[in-house]
Amino acid sequence: MEKIASIISVGNEILKGRTVNTNFAHIGRILTFAGYRVQRGYVCEDTTEGISETFREAVKHSEIVVSSGGLGPTFDDITVDSVARAFSLKMVKNDHITTILRNHYSSLNLPLTPEREKMAYLPEGAGYIENPVGIAPGVVVNVGSCRIILLPGVPTEMEALMGLAKDQYLYGGVYCEKSVIIENMMESTIAPVITAIMKKHDGAVYIKTHPLNSENILPKIEVEVSSYGSERIDCAELVTTAISEILKAAESLKGRHDDATTL
Amino acid sequence: MEKIASIISVGNEILKGRTVNTNFAHIGRILTFAGYRVQRGYVCEDTTEGISETFREAVKHSEIVVSSGGLGPTFDDITVDSVARAFSLKMVKNDHITTILRNHYSSLNLPLTPEREKMAYLPEGAGYIENPVGIAPGVVVNVGSCRIILLPGVPTEMEALMGLAKDQYLYGGVYCEKSVIIENMMESTIAPVITAIMKKHDGAVYIKTHPLNSENILPKIEVEVSSYGSERIDCAELVTTAISEILKAAESLKGRHDDATTL
Repeated sequence: MEKIASIISVGNEILKGRTVNTNFAHIGRILTFAGYRVQRGYVCEDTTEGISETFREAVKHSEIVVSSGGLGPTFDDITVDSVARAFSLKMVKNDHITTILRNHYSSLNLPLTPEREKMAYLPEGAGYIENPVGIAPGVVVNVGSCRIILLPGVPTEMEALMGLAKDQYLYGGVYCEKSVIIENMMESTIAPVITAIMKKHDGAVYIKTHPLNSENILPKIEVEVSSYGSERIDCAELVTTAISEILKAAESLKGRHDDATTL
Repeated sequence: MEKIASIISVGNEILKGRTVNTNFAHIGRILTFAGYRVQRGYVCEDTTEGISETFREAVKHSEIVVSSGGLGPTFDDITVDSVARAFSLKMVKNDHITTILRNHYSSLNLPLTPEREKMAYLPEGAGYIENPVGIAPGVVVNVGSCRIILLPGVPTEMEALMGLAKDQYLYGGVYCEKSVIIENMMESTIAPVITAIMKKHDGAVYIKTHPLNSENILPKIEVEVSSYGSERIDCAELVTTAISEILKAAESLKGRHDDATTL
């Protein structure tokens, strides 16, 4: 059985639609391929109540929660503090991070202001992941049986830290996924076939169609087949079998598939 | 006081990171400029429990909820049915939509299968928005004092229906926003100034900095100032005043601003 994950995006800029949430997709992709089932996503405002409430909710449903945003030096970078409040943890200044910050700002001839020093405070008992491309470290907090990983919002920093977090902290199981593109095929035409194939495999594979055009003109769909499990070879075989069954059915429904479009 | 909105994205493809959630940003932008404060966002799986639970949660906190995804003809397009279940509403076949569907598929020489006919079922009492570029209509359900608007997930269809929904159903108040780009400026350097200016305006303007580079190299930030209110002229004036104050302070901190970069 796969482990359950949630993703939290912190930031008014996401809610307002100023920023397209590419971080969410990046984190979702890595969690999924690390074998987690990402079951819920949340976007919350930069307020203590909004952040605290969202993390408390996510932890209830998840074995791992990964967030991005709100770790920097500005007044509204309050993710770490809000998570500490959510779970009644004290904030403790970390000496190692303080040294990194002091060295960094002093190399730029800048003082370690309270806004900058804030980044050295962690919830008691928390771990951290040093930031190889920026300043704010990632923060790792265990709450009961759930692990929370807090990452910054700047995509390059988030990606670097998510890579490190993956190696150190993520293992949910095995996940395989394969897609084929079928032309001259409406979602509504292939729908009964998909349902039957999923039923035949008794929940071991999941099949989803994605329309690549509107149904009205030049119908074209991507059919995605995926499977969670514990052995890579079993998952891969299941996915390959289901793909063959789909293509055979599609052909009899006058769908066109080119081998080059197996993704 | 601005009205509160939530956005729900339905679909495993978002959670798995296969699809970058551009719909969320589009809906967020339109809701914000219609004067709503978008306070919460949710992403949920294509399961009845996942969708029902998410809508029940969102309705508790919102005057308007806009979702995208799950309105089509496949087995996992279950948003409308799940929303009906969430609020114990019967599903009723709509004659007008049935006629549209029958005409559409018969013009393509295709039968009205159960999968296709499913799109004609609405929760009792719900309204609908005809889809000018696709098949599945938008659905409008009022639950207590909250209005729920369900849109399809295909971006072109979502955008067309969101435009129509905006004209017919959205009015939250007035929102103004303006951004300036300041070079040679770190977030952590300007942070105390931003806090002071927000305090001076006593919550009437909101100021957020967005780093456009990492703090380490060529620091450059976008400063966004926004205001919600009831009169456009007041909001615009407040935003303009705060922008001038920020630029004056930035200059004294050796920041560079070019008039061309006022967005």
